[in-house]
Amino acid sequence: METTELISKAQAKGMTVLTEAEAKILLGRYGVPVVDEIVSPDVEGTISAAYEAGFPVVLKAMGAKFTHKTELGLVRLNLQDEAQVRRAAKEIEKSAGSELQGYLVQPMLKGRREFAAGLIRDAQFGALVMFGLGGVLTEVLHDVTFRIAPIDDKEAEGMLHEIRSADLLGAFRGEEPVDRKSLVRTLTGLSNLAMEHPEIAEVDINPLLVSPDGIVTAVDALISLSRERAPDHSLIDRASSSEDSNSFLDTMFAPRSIAVIGASRWRKRSWMNLMGIIARFGYKGRLYPINPEADEIDGHKAYPSLEALPEPADLVIIIVAAKSVPAALRDCIASGHKNVHVFSAGFKETGEQEGIRLQKEIEAIAAKGGLHVIGPNSMGIYNPRALITSWEQAPKQSGPVAFISQSGGNTGDFIDHAGRFGILFSKAVSYGNAMILDCTDFLPYFAGDDETTIVCLYLEGVKDGKKLLQQVKHINRTKPVIIMKGGLTKSGARTVASHTGSMSGEEHVWEAFFRQSGAVKVNSLEEMADALQAFLHLGVPKGRRVCVIGTGGGIGVSAADSFCRADLDVPALTEGTQAALSKFIPAPGNIIRNPIDAGIVFLNHHTLLDKTLRILSLDPLVDMVVVSLHIDWFFDVARGTLLVDLARHLARGKKLLTSEKPLAVSLRSYRSEAAFEKALKAVQQELLTAGVPVYEGLSQTAVALSHVTKYHQYLAALNLSSA
Amino acid sequence: METTELISKAQAKGMTVLTEAEAKILLGRYGVPVVDEIVSPDVEGTISAAYEAGFPVVLKAMGAKFTHKTELGLVRLNLQDEAQVRRAAKEIEKSAGSELQGYLVQPMLKGRREFAAGLIRDAQFGALVMFGLGGVLTEVLHDVTFRIAPIDDKEAEGMLHEIRSADLLGAFRGEEPVDRKSLVRTLTGLSNLAMEHPEIAEVDINPLLVSPDGIVTAVDALISLSRERAPDHSLIDRASSSEDSNSFLDTMFAPRSIAVIGASRWRKRSWMNLMGIIARFGYKGRLYPINPEADEIDGHKAYPSLEALPEPADLVIIIVAAKSVPAALRDCIASGHKNVHVFSAGFKETGEQEGIRLQKEIEAIAAKGGLHVIGPNSMGIYNPRALITSWEQAPKQSGPVAFISQSGGNTGDFIDHAGRFGILFSKAVSYGNAMILDCTDFLPYFAGDDETTIVCLYLEGVKDGKKLLQQVKHINRTKPVIIMKGGLTKSGARTVASHTGSMSGEEHVWEAFFRQSGAVKVNSLEEMADALQAFLHLGVPKGRRVCVIGTGGGIGVSAADSFCRADLDVPALTEGTQAALSKFIPAPGNIIRNPIDAGIVFLNHHTLLDKTLRILSLDPLVDMVVVSLHIDWFFDVARGTLLVDLARHLARGKKLLTSEKPLAVSLRSYRSEAAFEKALKAVQQELLTAGVPVYEGLSQTAVALSHVTKYHQYLAALNLSSA
Repeated sequence: METTELISKAQAKGMTVLTEAEAKILLGRYGVPVVDEIVSPDVEGTISAAYEAGFPVVLKAMGAKFTHKTELGLVRLNLQDEAQVRRAAKEIEKSAGSELQGYLVQPMLKGRREFAAGLIRDAQFGALVMFGLGGVLTEVLHDVTFRIAPIDDKEAEGMLHEIRSADLLGAFRGEEPVDRKSLVRTLTGLSNLAMEHPEIAEVDINPLLVSPDGIVTAVDALISLSRERAPDHSLIDRASSSEDSNSFLDTMFAPRSIAVIGASRWRKRSWMNLMGIIARFGYKGRLYPINPEADEIDGHKAYPSLEALPEPADLVIIIVAAKSVPAALRDCIASGHKNVHVFSAGFKETGEQEGIRLQKEIEAIAAKGGLHVIGPNSMGIYNPRALITSWEQAPKQSGPVAFISQSGGNTGDFIDHAGRFGILFSKAVSYGNAMILDCTDFLPYFAGDDETTIVCLYLEGVKDGKKLLQQVKHINRTKPVIIMKGGLTKSGARTVASHTGSMSGEEHVWEAFFRQSGAVKVNSLEEMADALQAFLHLGVPKGRRVCVIGTGGGIGVSAADSFCRADLDVPALTEGTQAALSKFIPAPGNIIRNPIDAGIVFLNHHTLLDKTLRILSLDPLVDMVVVSLHIDWFFDVARGTLLVDLARHLARGKKLLTSEKPLAVSLRSYRSEAAFEKALKAVQQELLTAGVPVYEGLSQTAVALSHVTKYHQYLAALNLSSA
Repeated sequence: METTELISKAQAKGMTVLTEAEAKILLGRYGVPVVDEIVSPDVEGTISAAYEAGFPVVLKAMGAKFTHKTELGLVRLNLQDEAQVRRAAKEIEKSAGSELQGYLVQPMLKGRREFAAGLIRDAQFGALVMFGLGGVLTEVLHDVTFRIAPIDDKEAEGMLHEIRSADLLGAFRGEEPVDRKSLVRTLTGLSNLAMEHPEIAEVDINPLLVSPDGIVTAVDALISLSRERAPDHSLIDRASSSEDSNSFLDTMFAPRSIAVIGASRWRKRSWMNLMGIIARFGYKGRLYPINPEADEIDGHKAYPSLEALPEPADLVIIIVAAKSVPAALRDCIASGHKNVHVFSAGFKETGEQEGIRLQKEIEAIAAKGGLHVIGPNSMGIYNPRALITSWEQAPKQSGPVAFISQSGGNTGDFIDHAGRFGILFSKAVSYGNAMILDCTDFLPYFAGDDETTIVCLYLEGVKDGKKLLQQVKHINRTKPVIIMKGGLTKSGARTVASHTGSMSGEEHVWEAFFRQSGAVKVNSLEEMADALQAFLHLGVPKGRRVCVIGTGGGIGVSAADSFCRADLDVPALTEGTQAALSKFIPAPGNIIRNPIDAGIVFLNHHTLLDKTLRILSLDPLVDMVVVSLHIDWFFDVARGTLLVDLARHLARGKKLLTSEKPLAVSLRSYRSEAAFEKALKAVQQELLTAGVPVYEGLSQTAVALSHVTKYHQYLAALNLSSA
């Protein structure tokens, strides 16, 4: 029987699960090592089956309604002889009643190691393959890992290492290592099954029993069906049939003309007077306020409708009350305008009935009219080259970073915050409720954007997770993709639902996304800016081993803790390096370990710091060097001029001082006096201008360096050059 | 046979472990539910034993050398009849060879749930009782928890809940809940065993098998012996025999006279010119520089030796090169001086042979002479009331916080940093290598110090961990104890060893310490200051449910994530509260959930913010209120005066506005212009002065609030009033 036939027969009978025997036939076809089992229709048949399987055996009731067989007493283990089998079969017959469709007889397999594998479907990401610890502890310990399907052998192999109990895979208490190839075949088989059979909703294989010789056998399996064809299939269709080109985004990000519906409704200097903000930013194109009740707004001739415009506008901004948005969108369609930014709020994000209804209404209008809509509930576009912005204070200079954000507040905040570190943007977009255009529409655009070398995202959800994965995986190889995912925690997830109305991702599903895409996962805008500095300036670390040079033993302890928490090593220096340093760093009051605590080299930076950095960077155990500079401790030396001079010295020498190994600086200051703050800022400025990553605090330094290190390790694992 | 006799017999035979049978006898006496088993000397004996136990049985080889019996093939499970037992016994006889001392016959117990319990000894904390997941997975999953012995029933009960697999304790897949009382008896029994038998080094009970009816049985057990009496015993002695009174600390913290050996060696304005710093701070007592080569130093008459002083000095500070410290200490003893602060470095902390040797030398001198020594490698004392300090910039005003720190750098930094938030200190001490006086000497002093209401510690290690636990447990009930433990991570731990030369604690041992003592665990000085603000000003939260009111949907998502990560809840508001708020907060552009996103209430704070706070705080689901204020968003309204006015309003109203529920404010600003920074600081100042906790960023707010909440929950669990 063909697999499709097997499933459709079950569906035709109205079944929501396959029988255990059917499930195993299906899984066996997909490479899962299912247990040899014999189906028997009656008690007597079980006897001959048991002799065929060889004693001891396992006897199970068959029947599509039996989903918790063990608890129902429908599974009998370790039956030693004919008499035991017969007795067990009769007892099962009695317990099972009329739902009994026969018996399964299996050899009783032995093994102390039990794994589990499976398949689930997620509304955002479609099919996910699961691997984890099996047996009775599965649900108690949640030691599982996921991958978004489809996966290949390498990804399946990667999953094996990710569970906490991965040690069970090796030689274990006198038993052989697990047959990994068999596990990999099982996981890729599940992936294939998911892709080819969208009508399968879930698969649960538990236990995947490992015998003492390492052989893996799927002893029990459950397959449940969805009533309809699974949503995953349509997702795949959509992913491949999405619009060929996002070239309309070229026009939207650099429009030659902008019409603003609702231009006059807002106060002159408010953040809601978007036309005024764009005009003041120096926009060189044509601005058309649309307002039937005005002749002129802010010096721009007003038009009663889009129809009345002297030319079609490249971009229409709608900034009227929510209830007037449907009419505004209809105007766009009627007048042949396609590119629309809906600034207005009051839709799905309110969580209220009226808002949800209104969003459905405008979504239908926009979809039918083929409109390209950013929003609603969105701040819109920032493109300094085109002199267009929704954030009045954003800089006019452009830079290498693109920012795609669901939250407008976060967009403005991040432009400001990154600016403190001299980080500038190619473009940014706040797309709010993602009604039509989602992050997956903007990503390919920035992938092809020559001005952009790094892409940052603030996401609360995504409509097509598989597409996002494919895109990020691809882009990330040449342009690092840094993502802050809001709503990963339970409470956070609820807030997402009320905020932009998008589906919130479960933490484990997004974990799979980050692992598979290699995207850099940050938890705050601050961490995003810290990571950006490192990606822009640090260079490529050869490994995870950091040497820290600073002052104060207590600080040294914190440094080691911080780097260790960020998954970086602070290895002991080689004896040669220690000996070389001890020639000019005296023992009392200093510590020549790693971290190095040696105030003397900072007081004599032109000679001793240079020497120290050169010696450290030649140590083969050191991949990166961090200078930890305590502003307060050296401020007294000439009121901070030592500090600025030291910073200038590091800025000029940069990686030359560390033999091309990555160098970062961590600053620390606790004094509240203005002069200290000024010194700190001057030091920071010297370093930033020269492109030396500089952080306030060692734990921030550690996290940023860790992101870059992991990114390059990800690339290296793909066998891609990471230089 | 008495337990002591049993152990000493084994020791007399030179055994390092007890046989399995001996171990079980011993454990049985301490309340551990050991399996019924029959000892048999030979093959034939096993048969009758098996009939007595009832088939199926387990057969094990006996012999003190067999520590991995299963791997050696010396354990046979599930033997069904006489023939199987005989065959197994003969095979065991063959495998075991001459080391075989007999057989153990046990009934074959069934059960799918396996736990483990045990006992270890730690150099700092002495005996620790362990509980965790058992079976083959114990070493793979490390799902274990520890408690420092002795423990009572309540603490043992607490351990059961702490493992990840705690769900196994309840009703499980058709099996009865586990007999918790039996587990508790096992754990307290191990604790008693540890206290009464210091010659027992380790106990390992695995599995503690749970049968389907919930009954717990220790099926296998290993007890290993130490050659000598365990160090734990001496620790207990030391803890109880420590000096009755630390009244000499009164003198050391407020000396009427100070002699400084080595006063002239250092530059005038250096941090190493301690006499100069003390003099400039305004010290009113008598300062005696000791220097045979000078008549006068900095206007103070110099003396050639301590002997030559006109009076004995209350405190002697030694600040000479390391190699001259032994002689200086001998001078102290010869001249009858007991209270000494050794500032000098160059000892154990260098990690070098000479330094380690020198510390041993001075330790012997000091111990023999009965000196009270702070240090070496320590900055010393800060007591603003006595006008004595080692940190020149420290404030002269005193406050309620005591700080005990191994690191001098951290002490100065923390005094500065806390000062930014208006936090002042009663006293502080940096005690460096803790050669004689350790944190456990200072803690009782501050417990009895009326000026001190909160005690903070920076620890890298402790000599007597049990004493520390007893002290903190006691003090924490009336004065919150906040601890930053440096060197919890692997790399960190290595650095501690090289820094102050103290023993470093393993992460899980310190986890036990924090859980048992109820001390507040912070990871940085910044977090310590944040927690202090909350302890000083927040009041007592009734529970963990927070309502956040701020602006911006994206920020709302972050808020929920932050509080959830800090183990606080951001519950949905009741329908009544939502309805009441929606009367004056319009839906478009605002979100009336939790977090609340409503710019309008900030723009009309005198009316709407008051109303909002009152409504929220009357919601029975809200325990604390956080106002999240975005400086940048409201700065444009009258160049920041709205913000300052708003802060003043909150400061004046304080908890009156929230019906006495705790209120904290979180600030956020990303703009780099000076005016924004000025506004932020003004807002901060208004709130700090009024005693409203104020933080930069929601995640810091969440962590600080969480600390206070957990502390009061700890007190409540002790049935202590927490008001």
